[in-house]
Amino acid sequence: MKNLNIGMIGYKFMGKAHTQAWARAGQVFSIDARPILHTVCGKTRGAVEAFASRWGWNHTSLDWREVVDHPEIDVIDICVPQYLHFDIALAALQAGKHVFCEKPLTLTVDQAHILSEEAQSRPELVHYVNHNYRRLPAVGLAKQMIDQGKVGRIYHWRGAYLQDWIIDPQFPLTWHLRKETSGMGPQGDLNSHSVDLARFLVGDITAVTCMAANFITQRPLPDEAASGTFSGTRDESGAVGEVSVEDAAFMLARFDNGALGSFETSRFAAGRKNYNSFEIYGSRGSLMFNFERMNELEFYSMDDPPEERGFKTILVTESEHPYMSGWWPPGHGIGYEHTFVHAAADFINAVVRGESIKPDFHDGLQIQRILEAGLESASRGREIKL
Amino acid sequence: MKNLNIGMIGYKFMGKAHTQAWARAGQVFSIDARPILHTVCGKTRGAVEAFASRWGWNHTSLDWREVVDHPEIDVIDICVPQYLHFDIALAALQAGKHVFCEKPLTLTVDQAHILSEEAQSRPELVHYVNHNYRRLPAVGLAKQMIDQGKVGRIYHWRGAYLQDWIIDPQFPLTWHLRKETSGMGPQGDLNSHSVDLARFLVGDITAVTCMAANFITQRPLPDEAASGTFSGTRDESGAVGEVSVEDAAFMLARFDNGALGSFETSRFAAGRKNYNSFEIYGSRGSLMFNFERMNELEFYSMDDPPEERGFKTILVTESEHPYMSGWWPPGHGIGYEHTFVHAAADFINAVVRGESIKPDFHDGLQIQRILEAGLESASRGREIKL
Amino acid sequence: MKNLNIGMIGYKFMGKAHTQAWARAGQVFSIDARPILHTVCGKTRGAVEAFASRWGWNHTSLDWREVVDHPEIDVIDICVPQYLHFDIALAALQAGKHVFCEKPLTLTVDQAHILSEEAQSRPELVHYVNHNYRRLPAVGLAKQMIDQGKVGRIYHWRGAYLQDWIIDPQFPLTWHLRKETSGMGPQGDLNSHSVDLARFLVGDITAVTCMAANFITQRPLPDEAASGTFSGTRDESGAVGEVSVEDAAFMLARFDNGALGSFETSRFAAGRKNYNSFEIYGSRGSLMFNFERMNELEFYSMDDPPEERGFKTILVTESEHPYMSGWWPPGHGIGYEHTFVHAAADFINAVVRGESIKPDFHDGLQIQRILEAGLESASRGREIKL
Amino acid sequence: MKNLNIGMIGYKFMGKAHTQAWARAGQVFSIDARPILHTVCGKTRGAVEAFASRWGWNHTSLDWREVVDHPEIDVIDICVPQYLHFDIALAALQAGKHVFCEKPLTLTVDQAHILSEEAQSRPELVHYVNHNYRRLPAVGLAKQMIDQGKVGRIYHWRGAYLQDWIIDPQFPLTWHLRKETSGMGPQGDLNSHSVDLARFLVGDITAVTCMAANFITQRPLPDEAASGTFSGTRDESGAVGEVSVEDAAFMLARFDNGALGSFETSRFAAGRKNYNSFEIYGSRGSLMFNFERMNELEFYSMDDPPEERGFKTILVTESEHPYMSGWWPPGHGIGYEHTFVHAAADFINAVVRGESIKPDFHDGLQIQRILEAGLESASRGREIKL
Repeated sequence: MKNLNIGMIGYKFMGKAHTQAWARAGQVFSIDARPILHTVCGKTRGAVEAFASRWGWNHTSLDWREVVDHPEIDVIDICVPQYLHFDIALAALQAGKHVFCEKPLTLTVDQAHILSEEAQSRPELVHYVNHNYRRLPAVGLAKQMIDQGKVGRIYHWRGAYLQDWIIDPQFPLTWHLRKETSGMGPQGDLNSHSVDLARFLVGDITAVTCMAANFITQRPLPDEAASGTFSGTRDESGAVGEVSVEDAAFMLARFDNGALGSFETSRFAAGRKNYNSFEIYGSRGSLMFNFERMNELEFYSMDDPPEERGFKTILVTESEHPYMSGWWPPGHGIGYEHTFVHAAADFINAVVRGESIKPDFHDGLQIQRILEAGLESASRGREIKL
Repeated sequence: MKNLNIGMIGYKFMGKAHTQAWARAGQVFSIDARPILHTVCGKTRGAVEAFASRWGWNHTSLDWREVVDHPEIDVIDICVPQYLHFDIALAALQAGKHVFCEKPLTLTVDQAHILSEEAQSRPELVHYVNHNYRRLPAVGLAKQMIDQGKVGRIYHWRGAYLQDWIIDPQFPLTWHLRKETSGMGPQGDLNSHSVDLARFLVGDITAVTCMAANFITQRPLPDEAASGTFSGTRDESGAVGEVSVEDAAFMLARFDNGALGSFETSRFAAGRKNYNSFEIYGSRGSLMFNFERMNELEFYSMDDPPEERGFKTILVTESEHPYMSGWWPPGHGIGYEHTFVHAAADFINAVVRGESIKPDFHDGLQIQRILEAGLESASRGREIKL
Repeated sequence: MKNLNIGMIGYKFMGKAHTQAWARAGQVFSIDARPILHTVCGKTRGAVEAFASRWGWNHTSLDWREVVDHPEIDVIDICVPQYLHFDIALAALQAGKHVFCEKPLTLTVDQAHILSEEAQSRPELVHYVNHNYRRLPAVGLAKQMIDQGKVGRIYHWRGAYLQDWIIDPQFPLTWHLRKETSGMGPQGDLNSHSVDLARFLVGDITAVTCMAANFITQRPLPDEAASGTFSGTRDESGAVGEVSVEDAAFMLARFDNGALGSFETSRFAAGRKNYNSFEIYGSRGSLMFNFERMNELEFYSMDDPPEERGFKTILVTESEHPYMSGWWPPGHGIGYEHTFVHAAADFINAVVRGESIKPDFHDGLQIQRILEAGLESASRGREIKL
Repeated sequence: MKNLNIGMIGYKFMGKAHTQAWARAGQVFSIDARPILHTVCGKTRGAVEAFASRWGWNHTSLDWREVVDHPEIDVIDICVPQYLHFDIALAALQAGKHVFCEKPLTLTVDQAHILSEEAQSRPELVHYVNHNYRRLPAVGLAKQMIDQGKVGRIYHWRGAYLQDWIIDPQFPLTWHLRKETSGMGPQGDLNSHSVDLARFLVGDITAVTCMAANFITQRPLPDEAASGTFSGTRDESGAVGEVSVEDAAFMLARFDNGALGSFETSRFAAGRKNYNSFEIYGSRGSLMFNFERMNELEFYSMDDPPEERGFKTILVTESEHPYMSGWWPPGHGIGYEHTFVHAAADFINAVVRGESIKPDFHDGLQIQRILEAGLESASRGREIKL
C-alpha cells in the first residue's frame, strides 16, 4: 500500500485531534493509502519536539514554508488559527500539495476567493475545509434520509450553535475575540459549521438578515503563553483590551428551495458547552440533532400511522449507519475525535482516487460569503441578497 | 360571597375551555366571588341551547349586543374569532362591563389602540387578554426565578411556537388562513403568545427584523358548518381560495435590556403539535420550557459547583409551585385547560378587589405593535424600530 | 336522558377527583346517562357541608349506611381509605347498588374474596375498582398496539412505581404507614396499580419472588385533624409510633405467557413524585411509559428499517388516541384528574348498557392475591406460586 | 521514561479496544511508563500478522504460553473469551507477569478463587479485571459525589443492563450461548458489569433472589470462522444446537448497608443496544446513568430549594470531571473505547508505583460469587445468603 506523507502545521487542540485521525484512520477503516506522520511544525522548538515525541511524528520543523516545500510531503494539514490559513494554504497549493485545512477557511471573502481560484486551477490537488460535523454518523444518516425523500420538501432549517465559555466577563481577550486574528466571533467560529451543515442538508442560501450583539466590550488581556485556549489564564499586568468581534449573532435565511431558516449562535448561552444543533422540518418528516448527544438522531415521519407518530431517537451506533461498521458493536457510542478519523479516511481515499471531497475550498468561499453577508446585514439593518 | 354574572360570547373550542374555568375556579381555589354561568351567546339557536344545557349555562342569547347590555351581567367573556373582538370588547367597555377577551386582542394596531384608550378612560373596569400560558405553573416559576435574580442579566430569548396542523396542502382555507378574519397567520395566532411570554419574562422589545414564508398559496374552501376547526372538512364544491396570511414567520428582536432574541413560528413544522417553547440564557443561569411538556421547567444554574452543573428538569407539580397547591398531590400533573382556571380565578379576584390583571388591553396593544412591525420588516426587508 | 344518582362516601383528595369526574364526564363525552351529584357523606358535618356547597352536591349525610340504603341512589362511590372499603362495598352490593370503589379493593385477600363472590352473585350490578391509570390515553394506546401485535410476543415487563413523600424521617405516621388501616405499604398502594397495568397489558402472573425493606421504623404521630394527607403535620405531643408496613418492595414475577417481569416500588426514591412507569419488551417492539410524562408513550418497532430504528415519543394528545377526541385540539395535554373523567364515563355507560367494566372486583381479588404473595415471599425468602 | 512491554492474547473486538488503549494512554495522559506493543498472540497466523501490521504490534505469536513466558514481557493482557481466562491468567501470575484481564474473570467461582489466592500470594504483581465502565467519567463523578455525601444514605440501587442482539431466533448459537464457553448468559456477561458498578458505588451484597428465563431454546449453529461476533453468520449446514445459558436474569439484592436493589439483564430487550444503566436513590439525593448516553449523569438533590428540585443532566465533558482534562474542550464528548484508555493509564501507573488497581482478582471472585448465587436462587426458587 502506498504511503502518504503528512506535514502538519500547528499542534495544539486541533493538532492532537488531527494526529489521532491520521494514526487511526487506517486501523479502523480499510483505506487506499497509509498516512505517515512525517513532520509537525510549530513556533516553539521544545514544545514541538515534545509533541512529536508524544504523538509519534517523525520530524519537526519551526518553519511552515519549509514543510510546505518539502519534496517528500504529500499533504499539508493546517491546524493553526484562521488568520494563518490563507498564506499557508496558498503556498501549499502552489507547491502542489493536497491541503487539509481547519475551518473557517479564511478571515475574509477576498482571501477565500483567491484560494478557491487557485484550487480551481489545480484540479489534480485535493482541497478540503474541515467542517468535521458533516462526518458524524448521525449527520450522515440525516443526509441519507433526506436524499431518500424521507423528509420531503424542506420547509425549515433551525440551527443553533451555542456555547458559554466566555460568559465570565473576566475571561481574557484570547485571539478568538480580536477581529484581526479571528475575523469574526461565533458567526465565523460556530455558524460556519452550521452554514456548512445547512448547505449539506438543505441547499444553498439566497438571502440573510441578521442581528448581532456584544455583551462584554472590554476584557483582560490573556497570558497567551499559557497552555490551553479554554483555560482562561489572564495576563499578570491586569491590562484590558477591546473585544472586536460579536458575542452573538442571530441570522435568518432564505434557501434557494424556498425553505425559511435560522442560524443562532452565541458564546453567552449558559449551560451550552458545544451545542451544535439543528432541526429540519419537511413535508414528510422532520429531523433533529444536537452534538451534545452526538450518537443520536431524532426523526419524525408523516408516513407512520397517525396514532403512532412521534419523534424517534435513533441511536446512531449500529453497523448500518455511516462510518459505524469500522467501530464497535451495537450501542457503543463514539466521541468527538472520531469525526476527524472519518475525515482523514475520506481525504486519503480522495487523494489516492483523484477525487474531490466536500466541503472544499469552493464551499469554504461560499460559507464565508454567507457569514459576511450576515454581519453586513446586522450592521446595516437590512436583508442582504447573495 | 358575592356572585359575578358571566356573559360569554362564543361557544366552540374556547367556549368549552372558558366554561370549565368559570365552573371550577371556585372549587379549586378560594376566590373572592362566585362566578355564575349567566348567559352564553352564539349565532345558531339549537347549537347554543345544546351547549348551554350540556355545560350548565342558565340562559342563551343569539345577539351579543343584548348580552353586553344586560344589566345583570358583570363580565363579558369573548371567545369568538379575533375579527369579532373589537366591536364586542368596545361595546362591553362602553356598557361598563369587565372584559375577559381571547387573544389576539384585535386584527390591527389601530383597533387595539382604540380599545386600550377606552380601557384607560374607565379605570373601574378590569380588562384582560387571555394569553393563558402566563398562568402555567412552569411559566410562573420561571418568572419567580428571574425576579429572584437566578438567571442574572438576560442575554438571550429563543422562542419557537411550532405546529403542523395545516401541513397537508388539502387542509381547507379556514378563517385562520384569511387575512380579513385572522389578521395574520401564526405571527398573530402563535407569536402573540410568544411575545407575551417574552415581555412577561424578559422585558419589552425595541426593534425587530423578520422573514416570512408561504408554502401553500391556494387551498380548498372549508365546510365552515362542520364542527371542529381542526377536523379539516372541505367544502363539497371543490372550490379553492387564496391563502392570504403567512405560513411561517421567523423574527429576531432586540430587547430594551440589551438581550438578543428570536421568535420562530410555523404551522409547517411536522411533528410539532402545540410546541410553544422558549429558552432564556442569562449570566447566572438559563431556563427552558416547552408546552408539550407543560408540567416541566428546565433550569441551569452557574451557582452550582462546576462539576455538578447541568440542566435540571423541575417537575412543576408540587405545592410549592404557582397555582399548584389548589390541585393534586405531588407529581400529579395538570393539563392545558387548567391555565384557564387560573386565569378565571385571578380575573375574579381582580374584579372584586378593584385591581388590574396582566396582560391587559395595553399589553394587547403593544403585542400587536410588535407583531405588525415583524410583518412590515418581512415585507420591506429591513429592521423596524419600535 | 336518564339520570343516575351518585352517593359518594368520602370527600378528601379522592372525593374531589371523583366529583369533578361525575360533573364533567357528560360535558366532555356523549354518555348514556346524566350522573347527578346526589349525596356526599363524611364524618364531620361542617366539613361535609362545606364540601357539598363548594363542589355542587345536593345533599349531605354523616352515615354511610344511610346513603347505601337510600332508595334514590343508584351508584355508591367509595372514596375513603381502604380499611373502610369492605364494609361499605359489601353493604352497597347487598343493597343493590352499583359500586365504584377506590383502590386497593380491600385490606386482605379474604375480604376481596367475599366481595368478589357477592358481586358474582349479583350479575345485574356493575362493580369497579378504580385503577385509574388504565384509562390514561397513553396506556390505552399501549393496549391497542399490543392487541394489534405491534409488540409481538412479550418477553419482559419492568414496572417501577416510585415516590419520595415519606423520605423525611420526621414525616408522621399517617394511616398509610399502619398495617391496620392500610394493609400494606407501597406494595398495596402503588404496586396494586402496577399489577393492574401488567395484567391489563401483559397477562396474568403465575409466580412471584420479592424482597421488602424498612428504612425508618419509628415516626412521630400525625395530627390527623390537619387537612391534607401529604402536608405532614405532626401531633403536638411529640409521641412516636411504629411503622408497620414496608417502605419498599421489589418483586419479580413470571407471567403465564412466559414473560419475566419486575415490580419495584418505594416511597424512598428521592426525586420521584408519582413515577408510575413501565417498560414492555417484545419480539416485535417495545413500549415505555412514565406517569410523570403522562401525555407520552414511547415505542420501538423492529418493523422499522434497521438504520431508522429508535424509541419514538408519541405525544398522546391527538384525536386518534383513546379518549382524546373529547378533549382539546392537537398537542394540548391533559392532566391527572382526566383519568377519573374517563372512568366515570365508562362506568356510567356500563351501568346503562348492563355491561361490565374492568378492572372489577374479581380483578381486585386477583391483584390482592399477587400482592400478598409478594409480601409472603419477602418474609419467607422463597418464590410463591399463584 | 521506563518502557512496559505488553503481551496481548486475543485480537478480535477486545484486541482492538485494548490496542488503542495502550497506544493512546500516554498521549492523552501523563503516565509513569511507556507501554510498548510488544507481542500480540492468536491462533491463526495470517490473521494475527495482519492485525499486528495494521495496529502496530512489534511481534506476533501463535502460542500464549510462549508470550506468558517471554522474559521481555511485563504485562499480559487477556482479550480472549472467558473460558480461556483461567489458564492464561494463572500461568501469567505464576510467570511473574502483571495481568490485565477482560471480564468476567472466570467461568466459575472455583476458578476465580484459585486466581484470587494466586494473586494474593504475589503482592508484587498488579492484577486487574477490566470492568471498564468504572472508568467512565460519569461513573467516576457518581462515585465522587457519593463519597462526598451528596446522595446520603443509599436506599436503592436499580440496575438494568439490556441488549437485544440475539432477539432474532435465527441468530446463531455463538460461544456466548453455550455454558461451556461462556459460563453464564447475560448474568455473567452483563450483570458482572452491573454488580461491579453496584459494589463500587453502593457496597457489597449480602443476599440475592433471582428469576431467569429462556425464550429461545434452540438456535442454528454459527459459522465461527466468520469475522464479527455480532454479525450473526450461520453455519451452512443448517444444523441447530441447544442454548445452554439463560436469556434473561432478574435479580434482587440486599446490600450490607441495608439498601434494597435490583439487577435486571436481558438480551431480549428490543431497542436496547448497550443499555447499561443504574439508578441510585439516597436520603439526600439520587443519581441516574445510562451508557447509551455515556457523557451524561443525572443528579437530584434534596439540598436544592424545594421549588427548584429536579433531575439535573450533568454533561460530564468538562475539565473538572474525572479523566476529562486529558481529552477535548468543553462539551466534546468521548466514546466507548476511551474507558479502555483510562484503564490502561491507571494500570500502567499502578504497575510503576507498585500499587493495586480496582477491580482486581479478589473483586472478580466476589462478583462471580454473587452471580452464581443469583442463578442458584433462580433454579432453587429461594433467596441465597452470601
